[in-house]
Amino acid sequence: METASCARNRNFLMIIEYDGTAFHGWQRQASDRSIQQEIETALAAMTGQKVTLFGSGRTDAGVHALAQTANFHCLTRIMPRDLQNGLNSLLPDDIVIRECSIVPMDFHARYTAKSKLYRYTIFNTPWPPAIGRQYGWWIRAPLDLDAMRAGVGCLIGVHDFKAFEGSGSPRQHTIRNIMRAELNVQHDGRLLFEIEADGFLRYMVRNIIGTLVMIGQGKLAPPQLNTILISRDRRSAGITAPPQGLCLVKVTY
Amino acid sequence: METASCARNRNFLMIIEYDGTAFHGWQRQASDRSIQQEIETALAAMTGQKVTLFGSGRTDAGVHALAQTANFHCLTRIMPRDLQNGLNSLLPDDIVIRECSIVPMDFHARYTAKSKLYRYTIFNTPWPPAIGRQYGWWIRAPLDLDAMRAGVGCLIGVHDFKAFEGSGSPRQHTIRNIMRAELNVQHDGRLLFEIEADGFLRYMVRNIIGTLVMIGQGKLAPPQLNTILISRDRRSAGITAPPQGLCLVKVTY
Repeated sequence: METASCARNRNFLMIIEYDGTAFHGWQRQASDRSIQQEIETALAAMTGQKVTLFGSGRTDAGVHALAQTANFHCLTRIMPRDLQNGLNSLLPDDIVIRECSIVPMDFHARYTAKSKLYRYTIFNTPWPPAIGRQYGWWIRAPLDLDAMRAGVGCLIGVHDFKAFEGSGSPRQHTIRNIMRAELNVQHDGRLLFEIEADGFLRYMVRNIIGTLVMIGQGKLAPPQLNTILISRDRRSAGITAPPQGLCLVKVTY
Repeated sequence: METASCARNRNFLMIIEYDGTAFHGWQRQASDRSIQQEIETALAAMTGQKVTLFGSGRTDAGVHALAQTANFHCLTRIMPRDLQNGLNSLLPDDIVIRECSIVPMDFHARYTAKSKLYRYTIFNTPWPPAIGRQYGWWIRAPLDLDAMRAGVGCLIGVHDFKAFEGSGSPRQHTIRNIMRAELNVQHDGRLLFEIEADGFLRYMVRNIIGTLVMIGQGKLAPPQLNTILISRDRRSAGITAPPQGLCLVKVTY
């Protein structure tokens, strides 16, 4: 009979918050600081094993996460709560394990995911903020929000997002289903763009934001977003918005 | 006849936002980085004069401000808008001049002030945040908010706050008028304590917060806040809450 204290192979799922400011992104790299490497190093210290973390997806250098997810398999008797406590005491301040649980062995943070929600923050204010400046993109001139909202409306549904894909990121296909996309204004001139989809291409949200900002600046008309989508041509879309405005808010299973 | 382009002695008022994380406080110091020194250096570069900045009051190391105020006299033909633009391009990212205007020569940011509003942020969550961790005090165990609110009620009105004054800060007297004090809970476990008074003693808000947290932890009963006030004894009050939760939100004239 097996008891709770026996070491056995388990699949752990973690929900992870991080401030991406000082990281070169999620993925482990040879020399630069990454979130994956920090957590894998802490896991190795706790379990005495080399553990591989499977994230729901990469986030790029400077991008934040309120609730990134990652799973890993480990032969251990440590309970999730103790693992979470231990990791949070070992990890630096800019990474926090918010939840830890045991999931079925076939659960995979990336392949089991149904959808992801990203938020992009724009400070549309006469001056940039000093407090919280690490968490948004400052754009001084007032943006035309009605035009931007009309552009946002073109995004909903199933489309080929090849025009909004960064280079060097081969995928099986570039069709994604946008379940939700909205632009909300806060009292202090902050614009929050939230987008939920079954998956995202590399730089997709930041390229969409760069294009929406061009619409907000009157450089593109809202229906041109649709024209850009149909073109499947990256060169027709706007610039890539800077990373610090982007935050992975939720992964749904 | 004087024209707008003539240099003459003017009194400028600025509203200043800063992220206090990397400063040793407002006041100019011999070697450490201060907000006053950064702005005075930028003003000297712009005007070619040695300028002294009069702040509404000092903020301590690590304390933030959304709207600190400061005035300075300067013989210059520069207009406020150009001064603001120039300063913001010279200043580091963690200081922003939000407004700049000309005020009467007898205006003094400190002595003309009628009241000041401070906010203190507590993260009362199972884990500290990673994003925005620079802007609050994390307290893990749930606080008794009703008890804390009862304590807050004792603060309103005119009292002698000697028990809540930090050492080494001689004042003419320690009586202050608290016009408003309230504790609000946000959906994400953030507690915002806002307090407005005709003036504050050194460490007064942070010492009040330290005492309120002891009430929230059940270590003190709410009426004991009144007992501490009457005692005029610093040793009877709670600890000094850490600086990063504190923010100067407004100075009223």
